[in-house]
Amino acid sequence: MTFARRVVAEGLGTALLLAAVVGSGIMGERLAGGNVAIALLANSIATGGVLMALILTFGPISGAHFNPAVTLADASQGGVPWNEVPAYVSAQVVGAFAGVAAAHLMFGEPVYSASLHERAGSAQAFSEFVATFGLLAVIWGCARLRSSAVPFAVSGYIVGAYWFTASTSFANPAVTLARAATNTFAGIRPADAPLFILAQLAGAFAATVIFRWLIPSLPTTASSVVVPHDGIEGEQK
Amino acid sequence: MTFARRVVAEGLGTALLLAAVVGSGIMGERLAGGNVAIALLANSIATGGVLMALILTFGPISGAHFNPAVTLADASQGGVPWNEVPAYVSAQVVGAFAGVAAAHLMFGEPVYSASLHERAGSAQAFSEFVATFGLLAVIWGCARLRSSAVPFAVSGYIVGAYWFTASTSFANPAVTLARAATNTFAGIRPADAPLFILAQLAGAFAATVIFRWLIPSLPTTASSVVVPHDGIEGEQK
Amino acid sequence: MTFARRVVAEGLGTALLLAAVVGSGIMGERLAGGNVAIALLANSIATGGVLMALILTFGPISGAHFNPAVTLADASQGGVPWNEVPAYVSAQVVGAFAGVAAAHLMFGEPVYSASLHERAGSAQAFSEFVATFGLLAVIWGCARLRSSAVPFAVSGYIVGAYWFTASTSFANPAVTLARAATNTFAGIRPADAPLFILAQLAGAFAATVIFRWLIPSLPTTASSVVVPHDGIEGEQK
Amino acid sequence: MTFARRVVAEGLGTALLLAAVVGSGIMGERLAGGNVAIALLANSIATGGVLMALILTFGPISGAHFNPAVTLADASQGGVPWNEVPAYVSAQVVGAFAGVAAAHLMFGEPVYSASLHERAGSAQAFSEFVATFGLLAVIWGCARLRSSAVPFAVSGYIVGAYWFTASTSFANPAVTLARAATNTFAGIRPADAPLFILAQLAGAFAATVIFRWLIPSLPTTASSVVVPHDGIEGEQK
Repeated sequence: MTFARRVVAEGLGTALLLAAVVGSGIMGERLAGGNVAIALLANSIATGGVLMALILTFGPISGAHFNPAVTLADASQGGVPWNEVPAYVSAQVVGAFAGVAAAHLMFGEPVYSASLHERAGSAQAFSEFVATFGLLAVIWGCARLRSSAVPFAVSGYIVGAYWFTASTSFANPAVTLARAATNTFAGIRPADAPLFILAQLAGAFAATVIFRWLIPSLPTTASSVVVPHDGIEGEQK
Repeated sequence: MTFARRVVAEGLGTALLLAAVVGSGIMGERLAGGNVAIALLANSIATGGVLMALILTFGPISGAHFNPAVTLADASQGGVPWNEVPAYVSAQVVGAFAGVAAAHLMFGEPVYSASLHERAGSAQAFSEFVATFGLLAVIWGCARLRSSAVPFAVSGYIVGAYWFTASTSFANPAVTLARAATNTFAGIRPADAPLFILAQLAGAFAATVIFRWLIPSLPTTASSVVVPHDGIEGEQK
Repeated sequence: MTFARRVVAEGLGTALLLAAVVGSGIMGERLAGGNVAIALLANSIATGGVLMALILTFGPISGAHFNPAVTLADASQGGVPWNEVPAYVSAQVVGAFAGVAAAHLMFGEPVYSASLHERAGSAQAFSEFVATFGLLAVIWGCARLRSSAVPFAVSGYIVGAYWFTASTSFANPAVTLARAATNTFAGIRPADAPLFILAQLAGAFAATVIFRWLIPSLPTTASSVVVPHDGIEGEQK
Repeated sequence: MTFARRVVAEGLGTALLLAAVVGSGIMGERLAGGNVAIALLANSIATGGVLMALILTFGPISGAHFNPAVTLADASQGGVPWNEVPAYVSAQVVGAFAGVAAAHLMFGEPVYSASLHERAGSAQAFSEFVATFGLLAVIWGCARLRSSAVPFAVSGYIVGAYWFTASTSFANPAVTLARAATNTFAGIRPADAPLFILAQLAGAFAATVIFRWLIPSLPTTASSVVVPHDGIEGEQK
């Protein structure tokens, strides 16, 4: 029962996140009169605001991973049990596709359409490595504090990462798959997705190794990623 | 006496919120030189800043609903007593119209004028459903935490929802009625208001049902929505 | 000694605030290529960021009023003793002019120059009334909470108030005087300053009267405006 | 061992900071269609978001200075021991250059290239004096509070300082050196770097002297700059 709630929360949260990413990309591009910087400014600020709200909302229920790279990194440090990982990742992927569909319906687009937006090459792959490395660094560094600042740190980081990486920082395999199904501002060609995902997993792995050394107590705090949720789950059992 | 204070607080807070929404829309449109994305960026950032401040200001007095959909959802879970709902909703509607008038006076517009801004169709209605579903999800999820983060979560969500919904996220029946009375950037044709309100109530209902299951302890915390205010009201009696 | 520190803190904080308001206005206008909305977006976001930082920095020393309207309202409720008000207000005015001079020197402008920017008429005066009413409402409402959220609430409110008032929300007599001495983006004609100041004082008075009724315990908390600083001053004696 | 961790944290954090500053400058300029204000808006908002996240992430490990001016000021007040200063500063400089290289690789630029961006003259130098004076004022004022607000205060200040200083607020000698090695939006001619660094150190010195007087207990809290990290380091020993 508690497990069902956590899985539903991961799916619902990821759906709302993707609706925000894709929807604000569509709105930004439609209104920006051809100035891509203004569209990306809207897209990044909207994503940051919603992501902060969603981590605050779903964090106490499921940890608010919304991201298979986070779930895998967390499991590798003794957080989420390995036998729960498939359900977490499935919920994230299903939720991500549902969110893309919701954005498309809100803006009168077809439910799904393969993206034609090329995002290829080593500079893009390195961008995704850096983006996901930084994201996991922020998560591990802040989880250590057990502070209530994680939603703000992750959100602030993502707003910036939209701009400082050449790929606009997908940093999330479930998000990458679902964004291959939207031929709008936020899309990525399906053929380019595998390299993105590989680079993301490599970045998450590198950050986890480094922070395991930087913060020796990391494994004992891993069960509280992204947001501490054990105590509250306890009540739900 | 305490009840009178709460009702006045709801009215005053909603008035300031509408002054911010409508006023920043007028200013944004006037200065943006025809680039609607820049106008909406100003409109959304201004709304987010003021909404955060108003929830912090009026939350401890009245709960800072400013929104009949929130008041109804809260009452349905045992929060605001049903016999107080009419006064709350009336104060929100009266306050909303007062705020629109204040914005018009500040910018030298007529006190009221029916909007000609068409916002019709199923994509717009679905947008309002999603917008209000997300708003209530954020409120229920964060109220559960009893955290001081609600003003930031709601504000961050609304900044994003301006962009990721095709309707720019009214998500509030009182706001919808009052925005029918302004023929400026933020307006909505009076004829389009009923469908918006219906979709908003449906979204609020759906979120409440889902979060009642996601968070079993929800009814016992409902009296603290949006911001815990019982203890403080107690002092005021 | 403690008193000297508080007065210096008020002057230094107001100077940095004015440097930020005037400097970011100059930079915004120079770079925005004639799009006033982009200039004001930069001006408002820069002001909000710096104001938050300055309240956090100087709040524990002097209360971080930076504003004669706030000091007078606080004194009227038993906060700052009346015999300290002249020194507070003088420090704010002197600091404001010093900040304008610093901004001018950074941007290679003459130290002072009378503004030619007309801001007259009843709509502008009503804007300043609303702007200052809202500012004091936020301060009184949040001081009641004794929360650490005041710097964020005031900053979020001001970012929004730049946009939703036709006057761009001066809301501060010391700021108004000093901005009459800059013929740049943020300026105001000296002849228009008195009406602004009158409207600001009226708005502050109205908010104080209403919140005294809304929050009966207001006078006992007034000594903690904008940020609680008694305990810390005690240590400094 | 703990010392090694702190030095690595300073280097890694400064690297991510520079990647964000330089990378978002490149992206902003490429997308902004020639409107420098839009590019700087993206650059400043991205820097602010990432800086907040990095201080939250690395603060508990190393204090999150990322800045030789901060390390020197902290050492002068009995914070970081003088014999650790060379390692801190070296890590900051090495990290800064690594971050610039990472940004260049992500955007397909040469690893390093000397900047041709002229930033000379007394107005620029005075801008750096004011920028660093304000930064240290914020750090000393907030460290006094021992509050968790430092990451937000520093980040908000820097977003504003990009706009209110004519130099866009480098305020950091390591950042200045590394930005001489990028011929992109954020660059500075190597010949102009020494005057910037001199002005930064003067600004940091002035702020430290003034806050030592404003807050008599400053030296006893200096070991907790930018973020308290003693207790946590203790655990790591």
